[in-house]
Amino acid sequence: MAPAACHYDAVASTSASAGALLRHVRTGRARSRAELVALTGASRNTVSARVDQLIAAKLLEEGGRGWSTGGRPPTLLRFNSEAGCALAVDLGVTSVDVAVTDLSARILATVGHPIDIADGPGVVLAEVDRLAQLVLAEAGLAPADVCAVGVGLPGPVEFSTGRPSHPPIMPGWHDYPIPSAFGRYDCPVYVDNDVNVMALGEMGIAGSVQDVLVVKVGTGIGCGVIVDGRVYRGAQGSAGDIGHIYVQPADGRTVLCRCGNENCLEAIAGGGALLRDAIAAGLPVSTTREVVELAAQGDGSALELVRNAGRTIGTVLAALVNFFNPHRIVMTGGVAQAGAPLLAGIREAVYGRSMPLAARALEITVSDAPDLSGRVGAALMAIEEFLDEDSVVETLAR
Amino acid sequence: MAPAACHYDAVASTSASAGALLRHVRTGRARSRAELVALTGASRNTVSARVDQLIAAKLLEEGGRGWSTGGRPPTLLRFNSEAGCALAVDLGVTSVDVAVTDLSARILATVGHPIDIADGPGVVLAEVDRLAQLVLAEAGLAPADVCAVGVGLPGPVEFSTGRPSHPPIMPGWHDYPIPSAFGRYDCPVYVDNDVNVMALGEMGIAGSVQDVLVVKVGTGIGCGVIVDGRVYRGAQGSAGDIGHIYVQPADGRTVLCRCGNENCLEAIAGGGALLRDAIAAGLPVSTTREVVELAAQGDGSALELVRNAGRTIGTVLAALVNFFNPHRIVMTGGVAQAGAPLLAGIREAVYGRSMPLAARALEITVSDAPDLSGRVGAALMAIEEFLDEDSVVETLAR
Repeated sequence: MAPAACHYDAVASTSASAGALLRHVRTGRARSRAELVALTGASRNTVSARVDQLIAAKLLEEGGRGWSTGGRPPTLLRFNSEAGCALAVDLGVTSVDVAVTDLSARILATVGHPIDIADGPGVVLAEVDRLAQLVLAEAGLAPADVCAVGVGLPGPVEFSTGRPSHPPIMPGWHDYPIPSAFGRYDCPVYVDNDVNVMALGEMGIAGSVQDVLVVKVGTGIGCGVIVDGRVYRGAQGSAGDIGHIYVQPADGRTVLCRCGNENCLEAIAGGGALLRDAIAAGLPVSTTREVVELAAQGDGSALELVRNAGRTIGTVLAALVNFFNPHRIVMTGGVAQAGAPLLAGIREAVYGRSMPLAARALEITVSDAPDLSGRVGAALMAIEEFLDEDSVVETLAR
Repeated sequence: MAPAACHYDAVASTSASAGALLRHVRTGRARSRAELVALTGASRNTVSARVDQLIAAKLLEEGGRGWSTGGRPPTLLRFNSEAGCALAVDLGVTSVDVAVTDLSARILATVGHPIDIADGPGVVLAEVDRLAQLVLAEAGLAPADVCAVGVGLPGPVEFSTGRPSHPPIMPGWHDYPIPSAFGRYDCPVYVDNDVNVMALGEMGIAGSVQDVLVVKVGTGIGCGVIVDGRVYRGAQGSAGDIGHIYVQPADGRTVLCRCGNENCLEAIAGGGALLRDAIAAGLPVSTTREVVELAAQGDGSALELVRNAGRTIGTVLAALVNFFNPHRIVMTGGVAQAGAPLLAGIREAVYGRSMPLAARALEITVSDAPDLSGRVGAALMAIEEFLDEDSVVETLAR
């Protein structure tokens, strides 16, 4: 009976690969060939040869001398985030943001535009293509400079193929091969649901490496699951799809969800549900944003609606806290802009129903950078995946 | 803004450590020094020196010659699972199993005994100590041969300290330093909740490396969470503690749980709840096992009770399937022995309420080796953690 330790091996076996050496320099763990030798246990010759490849591919640069305690001071290495660029596409239900970034996910140019996701992949991706050419031109870059494309979508995606899978709010997108729409770039295209992408962006912006849930409450509700600093995707890449978890509202009503099931979390507590309930309560609103703004102005009915949505979301999060025991929950999306009343409802349910051990040190906060995280995350996903590929050196040196 | 790739680094930096080399040989990825050099990228000298240490510590053995395509054939290396032994303790509410295993988790001797967990740590751990000495003597081993101790407990544990944390069904155990009870062995002691331990055992027995939930339905209900073949523990080590997730029974009743909250999953659908409801329905039973046996004999009322428990467990699992998107769910514990009617209820709820993508290829099965997995898992946990420690070579060579 063999011990089940296979997981480590796949990672360890790439430890002195060009990608791994690059990662050590990018993350600041090593600043010279000698430090790379010490860190990886690889031979001096191996490290030197691979560093030379990375320098030829312009991913690493030599610059200056470090301190020495005796002997010739080492030549310092640094990551060249200008060796290429990434295209980041943050696709929402009613708008899209496209950005071009350098290889550290710094935004060089960006543009947003209204779309209707229900127009289908043909129309929407043609618009994305137009916007991508716009931002590239604005940044003074050519299609050949793009090393990787990252796309976030508001629905479940099979990560390995980049195809949406039965997305409830994206008619016509099921099984569409998104990567094929970026053929002009001749580079890898990575597609994931918008919430995984935002979660990566939140982690990148915060620079933290922990077990975190990033919960987006917009038109729908979804969750990015971060295990030890990386996106956890699950068997088919649909992990975190919490918007269609069954809930029982306190008032006992039954609500039909657009997915066809009854009483899905987002049918009770998503942005669309909030608007529906606000109109039913006689509030003078026509968008979810207006409900959130009324709550921010202290309107009693709006506050109560937002707080109730928080309570309902909190009952689901309480279960997930028991199951997942995260360090942190970050709320994002349009409804999360409501801030205090939403958090109050969530905290009431989570701290009231979670086990003491799991809730003890749990932080529940609202995102600091909700507008940025989608684009930064899409760029980070593309860059991380691209730099991890074995072919990264050959691709950039071509 | 630095990309968030720190996770890999901690793993990669140990890639040519003695522990990593050992792991390559144990898992069959490398069978010679040359293969270790090829696999890790480490220098021939580094690999040779560390292999010599591992041979001195008796963890590796040289044996025979491999095939060569020219030149001197390589000397083969193999893992010596007899370099030491592990103590495995599978602590339940009413019984304990203690085993001594070799370093591949093969059981050399084992003994079980009734206990009452409510007698508290003093009484119960004294009994464990007695049983451990018994199995060691039976296997012809001495306390000094024990390299590591693994303990599974029926309650939440802070893995880093080995202390139970507010265990709902273990009065007197909160914050007790379990490792201190094994002082006579002068070796590391690893403690985790019984379900994480069983999950490791299931993975070890199946030899599979995936994202899996191992759900134990015994007196209580808990879940081992396996991410990519390893136990996921979360921020405080309480991940998978699903027994106290709030559920709403179909019949609208309110049930007080022993944890003090109302309508916890295990208060509605655990083994204790099943017995309570069977007695209330007039069935001639006095233990949960008898209810399960009645269902196995085709008794209509018992079947319906088991199937309803399955449905309730299934509503929680449906939410977790959406959130976690596992490859597989393995049911274990006394109530899982009921088999078909429990699975039928679970599948009805899970396939009815999960998103199509997450449910598409999901397997839900009953454990093949429910009696073994606790001991095998406790041994594997101890062995894996021990062999991963940097000090493993020094410890064994002393």
